[in-house]
Amino acid sequence: MKLSELFTKTRKEIPGDEEARNAQLLIKAGFIYKEMAGVYAYLPLGLKVIENIKQIIREEMNSLGGQELIMTSLQRKELWEKTDRWDDHKVDIWFKSKLKNGTDVGLGWSHEEQITEMMKNYISSYRDLPVYVYQFQAKMRNEIRSKSGIMRGREFLMKDMYSYTTSDTAHEKFYNLTTEAYKRIFERVGLGKLTYLTFASGGDFTQFSHEFQTITDAGEDVIYLDKDKKMAVNQEVLTKEVLDQLGLKRDKLEEIKAAEVGNIFSFGTAKSEQLGLYFDDEAGHSRPVILGSYGIGVSRLMGVIAECYADDKGLVWPQSVTPAQIYLIRLGDGGAVVKSADELYKRLTDAEIAVLYDDRDVRAGEKFADADLIGIPYRIVVSDKTTGTKQYELKPRISDKTSLLNYNQIIKILTDK
Amino acid sequence: MKLSELFTKTRKEIPGDEEARNAQLLIKAGFIYKEMAGVYAYLPLGLKVIENIKQIIREEMNSLGGQELIMTSLQRKELWEKTDRWDDHKVDIWFKSKLKNGTDVGLGWSHEEQITEMMKNYISSYRDLPVYVYQFQAKMRNEIRSKSGIMRGREFLMKDMYSYTTSDTAHEKFYNLTTEAYKRIFERVGLGKLTYLTFASGGDFTQFSHEFQTITDAGEDVIYLDKDKKMAVNQEVLTKEVLDQLGLKRDKLEEIKAAEVGNIFSFGTAKSEQLGLYFDDEAGHSRPVILGSYGIGVSRLMGVIAECYADDKGLVWPQSVTPAQIYLIRLGDGGAVVKSADELYKRLTDAEIAVLYDDRDVRAGEKFADADLIGIPYRIVVSDKTTGTKQYELKPRISDKTSLLNYNQIIKILTDK
Repeated sequence: MKLSELFTKTRKEIPGDEEARNAQLLIKAGFIYKEMAGVYAYLPLGLKVIENIKQIIREEMNSLGGQELIMTSLQRKELWEKTDRWDDHKVDIWFKSKLKNGTDVGLGWSHEEQITEMMKNYISSYRDLPVYVYQFQAKMRNEIRSKSGIMRGREFLMKDMYSYTTSDTAHEKFYNLTTEAYKRIFERVGLGKLTYLTFASGGDFTQFSHEFQTITDAGEDVIYLDKDKKMAVNQEVLTKEVLDQLGLKRDKLEEIKAAEVGNIFSFGTAKSEQLGLYFDDEAGHSRPVILGSYGIGVSRLMGVIAECYADDKGLVWPQSVTPAQIYLIRLGDGGAVVKSADELYKRLTDAEIAVLYDDRDVRAGEKFADADLIGIPYRIVVSDKTTGTKQYELKPRISDKTSLLNYNQIIKILTDK
Repeated sequence: MKLSELFTKTRKEIPGDEEARNAQLLIKAGFIYKEMAGVYAYLPLGLKVIENIKQIIREEMNSLGGQELIMTSLQRKELWEKTDRWDDHKVDIWFKSKLKNGTDVGLGWSHEEQITEMMKNYISSYRDLPVYVYQFQAKMRNEIRSKSGIMRGREFLMKDMYSYTTSDTAHEKFYNLTTEAYKRIFERVGLGKLTYLTFASGGDFTQFSHEFQTITDAGEDVIYLDKDKKMAVNQEVLTKEVLDQLGLKRDKLEEIKAAEVGNIFSFGTAKSEQLGLYFDDEAGHSRPVILGSYGIGVSRLMGVIAECYADDKGLVWPQSVTPAQIYLIRLGDGGAVVKSADELYKRLTDAEIAVLYDDRDVRAGEKFADADLIGIPYRIVVSDKTTGTKQYELKPRISDKTSLLNYNQIIKILTDK
């Protein structure tokens, strides 16, 4: 994409009420637009990051046998009354509205009720199980405070997966497979080394649920981490019994701020019993289906990546989620330079390498500053110095080292990663 | 995808209140799930159709220079007050809710206010124009009645594009280019011959707006159509003056039911003036930006395709939007048949042909009936009759003629279309 055609521009001013570093940088760089606290639109560059993250998650969910669908935001009150989660005193983040005839409706903040109710149409026998379904859905959560940029949205994109299985064994097996898939996801988006499986309180069904917590000062959570053992516990389960059970020692735990990027949770048979999702087992006995729930906050994940990698010059995108592989700068507007830069842009684009081509007639300093702010992994400069040499100046975003390389050398660097 | 693994199943029963043929068929075939009137979830097969339609639209919008983004559902009251469209007496389809602090918010039923307000950050000079942006966004419309299945949703997927230009000439040129792109879209999704450009009332800025109306008994509109001239007018502009102007004769017009699948509309400078979106022209004069709006109801389009092509046996998908190219039936469970069908499934899948493989242990009649109901364009049968022959039985969904063909002949038929 040519920057002269991209409608977004880098901005110096940001909304006065924006406190979060991730949103400040993303707004300045033209990735997002703030509608109100916790409510952000995703502009072309931001949408590309979101789609890249989604595709990584989609591949991993499909590899587990997950089937993608999309449920609705509008929710029926009676369903949530059955599980006692309609009342604002029970769930304090509902957005609610009314149909014209006065019927109450809610805006979905989670979807296990709706999907479980739907599954009654498709699950009646052990032969219909297991079922794993997932979606990318815009959740609405009426948070009282929303000060962490895209890391805590009132409207945000979530991947939620639900597993329906017949036995504890089958449930546990899938739960563990998902844990491994989640590790691969966080590894692939560039957060592997910063993200820890964290034990949190479970429910009636299991002692623990599990969170994936990424170490960042911008996080709203505090975890207690044993870096050697790569394990952490959430404050709510920080008891002597739990530590003994997990083989952790209190004085070896580091108290550290973190952001919850994923969570996995066993509902057991409680929801199925409340909503009436039963199956006939092999002996013909009717039994409630076991439900597991597996979430990743997609837009939060983008915010966490922004927080973890940004430096004082701007954003730094990992290659797996970046909106473009190369930020191509044309320095000067002489015929030879324009021709050389245009040719390189076409050649890279034809090779299906995504390029942000800074073909604007602005000062060199502005181009360099924008390249740093936008945070594409590699910058290439075409100038009077390079025309005629068949070489280009390549600089990684995270280094000050510039190399003069020819086209094939550049391709090799991009594809080796 | 193997049908033994797909969680949806064809259903005999449908919700008692479902009157629309499109939704009845789509629910029976497992494409959608009805949450409440006008609110439907899209299950794996349905989501594939939606994604196929989106991709066709996306390609055409990109070819116009459109840039994809995604705005938010939550809307600020003050923005819509500026254009006098907040009041329920002015716009009677709002879903509204409140933040915890009591602030009113609306759920977006359209987005020109929000996008125009945002553009104030990016447009200040003629050099910043034109800008064309589009999104695929779940709109919320609090319809009093919603009886047309996915053709009139309270929550539905829409593609909306907005154009920002400096002059009437530039606006008109883009408006006409979009008209042509829309024709290509309706042609590509299989509705070209049934869809007519229809003159409807304009606003303050232009005499007409334009609708794309597809002829179907399930439509909620009535148009007056001159089939020879491939032109129609909406009832609201059916006057002698308009007909004279367009060169149409009243007695040559056919009154016919149709569904509005697209509309394009000029806002002129009215919204920009209300919201304060101005640009400096080449002479340095401040002028309001000209706005155009271009919608396609994506989920409605899927419903219209279902209505237009379905027969008494079930759905019939055009090849461009079908969730799979082939419905592969394995008849019998003998070793040779299973091996032959499994091999063909793998070979087609490896060739990136999407196959629904009916590998279930159910009666032959059920497989044939489900193949017809689900409506994949081609059915292949592997049976004792075909094993060892290197041939397979191919039948188009819309024909009763079966052909015995080898693998290469099948590929040729699929790729020739």
